[in-house]
Amino acid sequence: MNNFTYYNPTKIYFGRDTIKNIGREMRERGVKKALLVCGRQSIFSTGVYDQVSSSLIGWYVDFIRFSGVQPNPLLSKVEDGIRLARQEGVDAILAVGGGSVFDSAKVIAAGVEYEGPVWDLFTGQARIKSALPLFGVLTLSATGSEMNGSAVITKADEKKKWGIVSRHLYPRVSIIDPSVQAWLTKRDTVNGAVDILSHVFELYFDGSKSGELMQEYSEAIIRTVIKNIKILLENPADYEARAQMAWAATLALNNSNAAGRSGGDWATHDIEHSISAFYDVAHGAGLAVITPAWMCYVYREDLHTFARFAQKIFGINSGTVEEQAQEGIRQLREFFREIGAPLSLQDLGVEYQDLENMAENAVQARTLGRLKPLQRDDVLAIYQLAWDQQGLNKRECDSYD
Amino acid sequence: MNNFTYYNPTKIYFGRDTIKNIGREMRERGVKKALLVCGRQSIFSTGVYDQVSSSLIGWYVDFIRFSGVQPNPLLSKVEDGIRLARQEGVDAILAVGGGSVFDSAKVIAAGVEYEGPVWDLFTGQARIKSALPLFGVLTLSATGSEMNGSAVITKADEKKKWGIVSRHLYPRVSIIDPSVQAWLTKRDTVNGAVDILSHVFELYFDGSKSGELMQEYSEAIIRTVIKNIKILLENPADYEARAQMAWAATLALNNSNAAGRSGGDWATHDIEHSISAFYDVAHGAGLAVITPAWMCYVYREDLHTFARFAQKIFGINSGTVEEQAQEGIRQLREFFREIGAPLSLQDLGVEYQDLENMAENAVQARTLGRLKPLQRDDVLAIYQLAWDQQGLNKRECDSYD
Repeated sequence: MNNFTYYNPTKIYFGRDTIKNIGREMRERGVKKALLVCGRQSIFSTGVYDQVSSSLIGWYVDFIRFSGVQPNPLLSKVEDGIRLARQEGVDAILAVGGGSVFDSAKVIAAGVEYEGPVWDLFTGQARIKSALPLFGVLTLSATGSEMNGSAVITKADEKKKWGIVSRHLYPRVSIIDPSVQAWLTKRDTVNGAVDILSHVFELYFDGSKSGELMQEYSEAIIRTVIKNIKILLENPADYEARAQMAWAATLALNNSNAAGRSGGDWATHDIEHSISAFYDVAHGAGLAVITPAWMCYVYREDLHTFARFAQKIFGINSGTVEEQAQEGIRQLREFFREIGAPLSLQDLGVEYQDLENMAENAVQARTLGRLKPLQRDDVLAIYQLAWDQQGLNKRECDSYD
Repeated sequence: MNNFTYYNPTKIYFGRDTIKNIGREMRERGVKKALLVCGRQSIFSTGVYDQVSSSLIGWYVDFIRFSGVQPNPLLSKVEDGIRLARQEGVDAILAVGGGSVFDSAKVIAAGVEYEGPVWDLFTGQARIKSALPLFGVLTLSATGSEMNGSAVITKADEKKKWGIVSRHLYPRVSIIDPSVQAWLTKRDTVNGAVDILSHVFELYFDGSKSGELMQEYSEAIIRTVIKNIKILLENPADYEARAQMAWAATLALNNSNAAGRSGGDWATHDIEHSISAFYDVAHGAGLAVITPAWMCYVYREDLHTFARFAQKIFGINSGTVEEQAQEGIRQLREFFREIGAPLSLQDLGVEYQDLENMAENAVQARTLGRLKPLQRDDVLAIYQLAWDQQGLNKRECDSYD
C-alpha cells in the first residue's frame, strides 16, 4: 500500500426532497450573492430550477443566472462566466446541473480569483491558489464532480480537452436528489453509467500491486452499476436504482476507492478526450468505444488483474488466466451492447482519416497511461482497434472471440 | 435507500514516515500550544513520542504532556485533562495513541469549552456546541476514532460506559503510520480486528432493506480483516497487512459504509459496554464473546442478510437460508477461535451471579438495538448464551452445531 493523504471536505445531502437545503447552507456560510451556473433546458422543465430558486429566495441569497453550459463545456463559455461573476460581484458559485455544469462552475470559481487568462491554470503556467466557494445541485450522476476537486474543459480552437485538479475546487456542499434523474433520457443514463465504470476502471487497472480492499470497493461499484443500469432501462423512474447509481457515481471518483494505489491509469480518458475535441461526442459514448479497445491492447501487462475482473464481475472461473482476461473484456463489450452503448468509432460518426490527427492530439508530446505507457503509435493502434466492431477480433486480441 | 447527509472533514495522512507532518499541520492551523494526550508506555518505547515531539518542536508548537490514559478510559481522567488544559491555556488537543486516547482527547476538547460538568454532554443535559481543535497520531487501529466524531467514556462509580457523537469532535488531521503497529501485542492486534469487524456488523445487520452497495463495502472490509489478521498472527511486522487492517479500521466507522442505511443496530456494543463497566475487559475481547451470542439470538429477524453474510464471507452456498445463516455464525465463531479471541464470558472472568446486574445496567430503562429491540430479559438471555461455550448449542440456535 502506497502512502497517501485523504481529504474530502464536501458535505453531501443525498435523497428525496433535499434540494431545499441549498439556500440555508449557502446563507450559513455567509453567501450574499451567487452566480447560478446551469445548462440549457432540463432544470427548468423538471422543476429543479424552481426548487433551487425558492430555497435561495427563502434564505435571502441573491443570485444571477448564467445558463447555456453545454456537454464538453467550452473555455469560451467559462470566460463569459468569469466576466459576469466579476461584473456582478458575486461571492460564490452555484452549479445546478450535471458534470459539465459543475466543471464549468469550478473553473469560473478559480478564474474569478486569478488575474491572468484562466487557461494558464490548465497549461501549468499558473497554479490555483484560491477559488470562490462552490456549491452544487446535481441533476445527472456520472462525472463525480460533485465531490471532488477536478474539472475538464475544452479549448475548441486548439482541440484541447484538458483537466485540472485542486483542493480549492471541492464543492462546500453538493446536493444529490436521485429522484430528479427520473427524467433523464435513456442515452444520458447509459452514458452516465459508462462514465462511472470508466472512472473505476482507470483506478482498478493502473498496475498497482497493493490495496486489495480498494479493489474490492471498485468491484462493488462495478457490480452496482451493471445491475442498476439494467433496472433503469426497464424503469427510468425506479428510485432505488437511481439512488444506487447516483451514490456509485460519487464514490467512483471521490478518492474513496483509490487510497494507497497508484493514482490511476487515465489513458482511456485522454484517448477519449481527443475524440470529443474533434467531434461532438458525449464523453460516456466515447468511453464505451475506447475502453474495450484499450483493454484489449494492454491486458497482457497485468493478466492477474484482468482475470480477477472477469472472475469478480462476470463469474468467469474456467480457462487459463489469459482466457479469463479475454473473456472478461468480451463480456464487458457484450454488456455495452446490451445497454445500447456505441461499440465503434464508426458508430460515433468518426472519419477514418482523422485517426492520425486524433492520436497526435491525444498524446501532445506526452506519454499516456501508467499500466502500459502509450506513445502516438499505440494510441493510433487503439483507435484502429476501436474503428469498427471487427477491429478487436483481428488485432492484438487474436483469440479474442 | 434512505436520505442521508455525509460530511467527514478529517484530513488523513497514511503510510510510513508520515508522523513528521503533525507539527506543520498544527502550525498551519494556528496552534501555539497543545495538550498532548497519551497512554502509559508504548509511545515512548516505540519511538512514536520522539517523532511527534520532534515535529512539534521543529514547527514551534508548544505542548504539555498529559499521559496515563487507560483502555476503557475513565471520566475522572478526562476531568483531570480538562483542568490541565484550562490551567495551561492550550488552544488544541493532540491525541497520540489508540482509540482510548483519541476518545479521551475528544471529550477533553469538548469539555474545555463547556462550563458545566462534562458528563452533562453524555446524559443529554447539554449539547456540544464547540470544541478545541483536535489532532491525532494513531498507534492502534481498531475504534475508527481517528476519522469520526464519536467518543466512549466510562463513569466508573455509576458503572456507565457511554458514548457521544458530535460534528465538533472530528479530528482536523489524523496521522496513521501502520509501521508503528508492528510492535502491538498479539492480544491487542486480535482485539483490534474484532472491534473493526464488530463496527461493520453493527451497520450490516441493522435490518435496513436498502443500500446494497454499502453492504458490498462492508463485506469487503470483513474479508480484508479476516485475511489480514491471519497474516499478522504469523508475522506481526508485515507492513502490507498492517496497512490493510489500519485502513479497514478507519473505513469501518467513518460513515463511508453506512450511507442510506438505518444507522446501525449497536445492541452488541451496548451489551459489551456493560461487561467493561463491571470488569476490566478489553472492548474487542468482550465483543468477540457477545457477537455470536447476539447473532444467534436475533438472526431469525433477517434470515436473508445472515444467509448473505454466510455466502459472501465464508462461501456457504448449500442448505436452506436458515441453515446458511446458522453456518455463517458458526464459521464466525470458528474464526474467533482460530485467531485466539475469547469465546465465552467465563473466558473473560465474568461471574455468573453478575449477569442480571449487567443486563440491568446495559438496558437502563432503554431498549437496545434496531434489528430486534432488546429488553432486559433479552440481554440477560444473550449473556447466558455467551456464558460458556456450550450456551450457543443449547438455546435459541437449536440446530446450531
